[in-house]
Amino acid sequence: MEMDSLIMHKAEVLIEALPYIQRFNRKIIVVKYGGSAMVDEKLKMNVIKDVVLLKLVGFKPIIVHGGGKEISSWVKKIGMEPRFVNGLRVTDEPTMELAEMVLNRVNKSLVQLVQELGVKAVGISGKDGGLLNVEKKLSDGQDIGYVGNIKKVNPELLFDLLEKDFLPIVCPIGYDDNFDSYNINADDAACAIAKAVKAEKLAFLTDVEGVYRDFNDKSSLISELTLEDAEKFIAEGNAGGGMLPKLKNCIDALQEGVSRVHILDGRIPHCLLLEIFTNKGIGTAILKSGEERYYHEV
Amino acid sequence: MEMDSLIMHKAEVLIEALPYIQRFNRKIIVVKYGGSAMVDEKLKMNVIKDVVLLKLVGFKPIIVHGGGKEISSWVKKIGMEPRFVNGLRVTDEPTMELAEMVLNRVNKSLVQLVQELGVKAVGISGKDGGLLNVEKKLSDGQDIGYVGNIKKVNPELLFDLLEKDFLPIVCPIGYDDNFDSYNINADDAACAIAKAVKAEKLAFLTDVEGVYRDFNDKSSLISELTLEDAEKFIAEGNAGGGMLPKLKNCIDALQEGVSRVHILDGRIPHCLLLEIFTNKGIGTAILKSGEERYYHEV
Amino acid sequence: MEMDSLIMHKAEVLIEALPYIQRFNRKIIVVKYGGSAMVDEKLKMNVIKDVVLLKLVGFKPIIVHGGGKEISSWVKKIGMEPRFVNGLRVTDEPTMELAEMVLNRVNKSLVQLVQELGVKAVGISGKDGGLLNVEKKLSDGQDIGYVGNIKKVNPELLFDLLEKDFLPIVCPIGYDDNFDSYNINADDAACAIAKAVKAEKLAFLTDVEGVYRDFNDKSSLISELTLEDAEKFIAEGNAGGGMLPKLKNCIDALQEGVSRVHILDGRIPHCLLLEIFTNKGIGTAILKSGEERYYHEV
Amino acid sequence: MEMDSLIMHKAEVLIEALPYIQRFNRKIIVVKYGGSAMVDEKLKMNVIKDVVLLKLVGFKPIIVHGGGKEISSWVKKIGMEPRFVNGLRVTDEPTMELAEMVLNRVNKSLVQLVQELGVKAVGISGKDGGLLNVEKKLSDGQDIGYVGNIKKVNPELLFDLLEKDFLPIVCPIGYDDNFDSYNINADDAACAIAKAVKAEKLAFLTDVEGVYRDFNDKSSLISELTLEDAEKFIAEGNAGGGMLPKLKNCIDALQEGVSRVHILDGRIPHCLLLEIFTNKGIGTAILKSGEERYYHEV
Amino acid sequence: MEMDSLIMHKAEVLIEALPYIQRFNRKIIVVKYGGSAMVDEKLKMNVIKDVVLLKLVGFKPIIVHGGGKEISSWVKKIGMEPRFVNGLRVTDEPTMELAEMVLNRVNKSLVQLVQELGVKAVGISGKDGGLLNVEKKLSDGQDIGYVGNIKKVNPELLFDLLEKDFLPIVCPIGYDDNFDSYNINADDAACAIAKAVKAEKLAFLTDVEGVYRDFNDKSSLISELTLEDAEKFIAEGNAGGGMLPKLKNCIDALQEGVSRVHILDGRIPHCLLLEIFTNKGIGTAILKSGEERYYHEV
Amino acid sequence: MEMDSLIMHKAEVLIEALPYIQRFNRKIIVVKYGGSAMVDEKLKMNVIKDVVLLKLVGFKPIIVHGGGKEISSWVKKIGMEPRFVNGLRVTDEPTMELAEMVLNRVNKSLVQLVQELGVKAVGISGKDGGLLNVEKKLSDGQDIGYVGNIKKVNPELLFDLLEKDFLPIVCPIGYDDNFDSYNINADDAACAIAKAVKAEKLAFLTDVEGVYRDFNDKSSLISELTLEDAEKFIAEGNAGGGMLPKLKNCIDALQEGVSRVHILDGRIPHCLLLEIFTNKGIGTAILKSGEERYYHEV
Repeated sequence: MEMDSLIMHKAEVLIEALPYIQRFNRKIIVVKYGGSAMVDEKLKMNVIKDVVLLKLVGFKPIIVHGGGKEISSWVKKIGMEPRFVNGLRVTDEPTMELAEMVLNRVNKSLVQLVQELGVKAVGISGKDGGLLNVEKKLSDGQDIGYVGNIKKVNPELLFDLLEKDFLPIVCPIGYDDNFDSYNINADDAACAIAKAVKAEKLAFLTDVEGVYRDFNDKSSLISELTLEDAEKFIAEGNAGGGMLPKLKNCIDALQEGVSRVHILDGRIPHCLLLEIFTNKGIGTAILKSGEERYYHEV
Repeated sequence: MEMDSLIMHKAEVLIEALPYIQRFNRKIIVVKYGGSAMVDEKLKMNVIKDVVLLKLVGFKPIIVHGGGKEISSWVKKIGMEPRFVNGLRVTDEPTMELAEMVLNRVNKSLVQLVQELGVKAVGISGKDGGLLNVEKKLSDGQDIGYVGNIKKVNPELLFDLLEKDFLPIVCPIGYDDNFDSYNINADDAACAIAKAVKAEKLAFLTDVEGVYRDFNDKSSLISELTLEDAEKFIAEGNAGGGMLPKLKNCIDALQEGVSRVHILDGRIPHCLLLEIFTNKGIGTAILKSGEERYYHEV
Repeated sequence: MEMDSLIMHKAEVLIEALPYIQRFNRKIIVVKYGGSAMVDEKLKMNVIKDVVLLKLVGFKPIIVHGGGKEISSWVKKIGMEPRFVNGLRVTDEPTMELAEMVLNRVNKSLVQLVQELGVKAVGISGKDGGLLNVEKKLSDGQDIGYVGNIKKVNPELLFDLLEKDFLPIVCPIGYDDNFDSYNINADDAACAIAKAVKAEKLAFLTDVEGVYRDFNDKSSLISELTLEDAEKFIAEGNAGGGMLPKLKNCIDALQEGVSRVHILDGRIPHCLLLEIFTNKGIGTAILKSGEERYYHEV
Repeated sequence: MEMDSLIMHKAEVLIEALPYIQRFNRKIIVVKYGGSAMVDEKLKMNVIKDVVLLKLVGFKPIIVHGGGKEISSWVKKIGMEPRFVNGLRVTDEPTMELAEMVLNRVNKSLVQLVQELGVKAVGISGKDGGLLNVEKKLSDGQDIGYVGNIKKVNPELLFDLLEKDFLPIVCPIGYDDNFDSYNINADDAACAIAKAVKAEKLAFLTDVEGVYRDFNDKSSLISELTLEDAEKFIAEGNAGGGMLPKLKNCIDALQEGVSRVHILDGRIPHCLLLEIFTNKGIGTAILKSGEERYYHEV
Repeated sequence: MEMDSLIMHKAEVLIEALPYIQRFNRKIIVVKYGGSAMVDEKLKMNVIKDVVLLKLVGFKPIIVHGGGKEISSWVKKIGMEPRFVNGLRVTDEPTMELAEMVLNRVNKSLVQLVQELGVKAVGISGKDGGLLNVEKKLSDGQDIGYVGNIKKVNPELLFDLLEKDFLPIVCPIGYDDNFDSYNINADDAACAIAKAVKAEKLAFLTDVEGVYRDFNDKSSLISELTLEDAEKFIAEGNAGGGMLPKLKNCIDALQEGVSRVHILDGRIPHCLLLEIFTNKGIGTAILKSGEERYYHEV
Repeated sequence: MEMDSLIMHKAEVLIEALPYIQRFNRKIIVVKYGGSAMVDEKLKMNVIKDVVLLKLVGFKPIIVHGGGKEISSWVKKIGMEPRFVNGLRVTDEPTMELAEMVLNRVNKSLVQLVQELGVKAVGISGKDGGLLNVEKKLSDGQDIGYVGNIKKVNPELLFDLLEKDFLPIVCPIGYDDNFDSYNINADDAACAIAKAVKAEKLAFLTDVEGVYRDFNDKSSLISELTLEDAEKFIAEGNAGGGMLPKLKNCIDALQEGVSRVHILDGRIPHCLLLEIFTNKGIGTAILKSGEERYYHEV
């Protein structure tokens, strides 16, 4: 009648997940997938497994992915030089053509990985079903080509795919009112989609541990920020580099109905599972004031 | 970027469950619940948590429970003496009345535990919706009162409750063609229901480790029996005591469409989870010949 | 071409029922079933036949039953003495356990009778699907044990069963926020359920003819009371004994959306049918002011 | 606590109807309506009330009506002379035009009566939704104009109307493959429709008491005929006049899936109700051999 | 690889229809059908073909037809004299009876034509499903018999038929609160129905080219009128004869949710198709101010 | 009342389309789109408009497209040389990567054109939803890389998208059992999909007029081939070049349930519309023997 303790531990871990599975049953979670977690093959497989598990235990995940590194690598391959203005890729017509080729291929290879794990997936861009309608984005008033600001999201196709039990995987390409193609920042796309589908959670997989109170002090990682804290944090000029737009997206999402946003370290294997199914928080959670960081046991 | 190994282990356990969750998505599993696991309060809570987890990750569990000990205790309480013939309770009219009272109360207290964990449950007997229609069962030709053999199962109510996302909990009371009430052996009820709903799995929670090749040699536990093995095992007279009818039920269920039957040791905490979600098999599995004991990783 | 007059009369009775059948098509009627009509076997069968007929001609009946006499009889059987404070049963833990056993058995035997007449029924308590959530009820500030006041009704299971064409039969047991079991007055339960499902009618089967203007003068039976009349009647201290809480329930139900409440004499065979399908009113009807006692012919 | 006996009798009549209501729940009954019951205003209202009651208690009735007398009266009104060959109306083009006008008006006036009683009705002819496709019917090889034999029934519109809870009322006009209009014998239309919708019952309202063994001996009314009896009855030349084609229709309907056919005396008020809801059979029932005339109590 | 130009032109015509088909997909269009287009067999077939085409390319058409000429012709046939007061037919009981006969026959012959083209149709009057409830209409205070003003439209049957993919064809007969039958002006019926079903378009097929600014100057045909223009046009006394009530109906329809009303010349073959599918407007369009006469190409 | 003849002609063209629209209502048509019609911008827009029109008038079109020229052009752009063996592209890993990039971009640009015309479209590859499962295709026993033979089609995603009213656009990329990516001949993909969805029609847009009896004699174009003719034609060695595999696909499709296959000249503007909506056949139709080339007027 004895069982070795390792086995018993397994049961406990599963039981520990119970209240979380219950809480998020049939809720939509949008995962912005990018950075190292997309380059390292093993990390990539871990992320896909995490999302597949979320789907199987009853969540409705949507993946929004980037592909900046792959685009740059192809730009060079055909003898052009990637150019950036204020961190935004200058996207002339040949670059846009290439970006669309690269992103769609990345998109379908993610579909493949999910299908391989036995879950039904469909890869779409912001053109399919008119999902992402954009207008030209200027960088400090300067035209940097086919870079788009999202004007309107038409989530009908996403709802249809979720209803039919598919996992939608979205690449951040949109169209303007002339039906020209535009590159969109993947963080922006994930945030806009999370708002449009009234997601319960929006999780950014990044290459940092989370938000630091002092970027130069790795021990100053912030585990939890309220909406108000985040606004103050920005106002005081503490958010620099790539973190500033990300935080703005977080605030925007929370204000428009998303319940909680996570900035996770995509370099940690299974960071999504750990954040969602255990009380060991990972990275930084941004939440409405008055809510608590950790859920209580049911 | 480091995480302590305990945490990482948690993720691995969850990921290990992935292929099983996938395999049994929307499948019906009938759990015969009885013995020690119903008496010990802690074991009881573990069983309920296991079943609730199964439900939340996408299974459709049905609980069929017994209550023999509680019935005997009440029989004595009102000054009568429990009597058994060949292991079957002699069930005169006052005993039947009491049995029905006791079993229905046990039934609703299990409903309560499931509801407490946030999952919707309904407690029914074999009278509700005409679920279990019986005829009188004789013991070696002897009339032992209101003890029923199941003639017909009408699973409509079970399907309706599953469709509406309730967890059905069944107590083994039936009615004959004169609409008199009958006590039914809970193993028989679980087996008949598993066949009628075409369950994927039927699991018996018992007070033994499983089937022993030699009952007196605890080291002779059989991990796996094919249908043919089981028939041979019985034919050779190896199955004695309570195991004989149980094995006959197992064979019957496998022949009528249930995919796999498990005899589990209900005294092991979370034996259901461990059997279903890990490669560490518990107790004895009876399966069709040609199938393998452990599922391969997806 | 002649038919004897008895036969012709039959046709007229059926035709007389036409406007009532039409008026209550697919409407919910909650029947509080208790008293003599539950003890006398013949009266019991009449009530069940009436409710079955209501169901077959298109109503959606819900039965809520009591069982006080049966509980008292069992309390004595095991050597305890029933105790009451202000008409409420003092319900310590052993009494509660017994009450739950008795009421659930009564519940399933009513299910059996309905099933026997060919109509699908399901017996539930206030625990199933979380139907009746209570808090402890004090009697003049005194703790009398597990006696519950209904705080919240969750009618989801009732609607699901009605949709699937089952006749729900409810026994008045609830649970508090600690998931302990409580006994509930059946009148209170019927009233709370009628409000929660927005019943068209609520009918109490009682052991009196109806409401008397002067309880000692049997000729002072009131056929019709408006809501205002009933409030005045109470204010003037005319309602005594068991009638006071019943009238309060009637007023409560009418104020919360139930269209009409009936206090019927359960000792009259088929009182339900007669009240509903003929212009010969039975007992006392409580209705909103401005409405009329008898429906006009269509 | 006393009730006068008349009132109690009412309850008994309703309860007596219980098993019949149960047995025919959601079953289709086709009523061929014609003869005196269509001419006498009081009998007409009785028939309509009967059918409305059948609908309200759960049947799905379809009325098929004739209108021969009204047609003849209009033929004379415009100065023509009605002509018949072997009992079939010679239907030249002007007669057909008039017949269609008359029958459609009769049709809509029946719709009106049903609507007046609060039940939704729709009046259609065999043209609507392509219901009744015919070919020319010859009378002993003689062309008698636009008189149709039914070739094919398309019951889709009937099923759609029943699904949407309308009572369909059909007038017996059809179309041939050139889309010309044809008059159809109403008995034939009722029979063909009953077969196409797999009706449970087909009832002919006629101007005779039923089938007589000897037409000249009114005491020889046959209460019950099996299919085989009826065939023998015809073979022996006992069926004459209008009864011969009617009996052939009855046999045809029984052979094609209708469960029971009734030849009722439409001059008896509420003959439909009496036949269906009481054990006092009216007229002649034709049934498959082996079945019994009267249903046993449930 | 050459194709003759005629063939190429065909493709262009089809392509030209594309934006209109798109714009009106699943929209309801009510067509008031009367006048010459109902008398001339060839024009009649053209109208039916047009409506059938509208249905097949995705519209949901409803036909409302008149039949004044046919009624008058039958009134004379039976030796009566048609009488009119202020353009309204004096409708005594025999006239009403005849009108109902004639209109229902016209109705079913239209059903026949549509069915012949392979589209499912059902002919109904305002009695079916209680569609058109009226009150007596007086002519300058004078009782002119069974002429009805529409009080209430119950569009349930129309929606049911459209859902089941039938083309409803309505004849303008209604019922008052005593369930007497009334003749209704077909323009009024079409307008009331268009409002009740929230039609996208209402088209009147007439015997004039459209609205003339000066009725005596055929060159003054008005192609487009805004709601305000139409009101002013009436106020200035420019609308005479049959055009005045028609224009009032147009205004009423536009104010109650219909998007656009057309007065078309039914004598032009395929005027419906030409108006709807080409930029060559036919007759007079009445639209809300601010909208444009011709749709722009997509 | 006169209309110029050009306008009247428009109406006639639309009416001419009526029987075809009717015949193909809700039928699936698979269009293989490739060749010149994909290169010339004006022809491309014509094809898209044709397919959009088909969708709007009630068909359910699915586009399967190629992209060989675009792939070759990109292969050269990155400094490689396209290689072919027996007309099949040698597809090493870098070529496959590029092919996937190019085809997916072509795919989404077609989505864009359809969306621009107001119709909902989704672009998928054979990976999405596991649509196209392949095995390696050898060319005369020689391994030519990632070129796939279709083993299995899973049409679930296509049916889901059609149900939700999207126009699916498919690019011919598949996956083998190791989940590697493969290039598929677009004709093969179109044929396999047409069979899997039981398409009514399969149309190949090509760069030839159709099938010539003698390829060198342009006057020997065959308008119509029965299945048997086609088999004989191949057996006699008359089908050469690209026509041989295409004809084999045609025969395969007809044998597996597709009703008719068309080889159309994609260089003729609107060839799809002309073939489908007029009696002027375009190219070569392959049909089952016994069927006729042109449909008769309804």
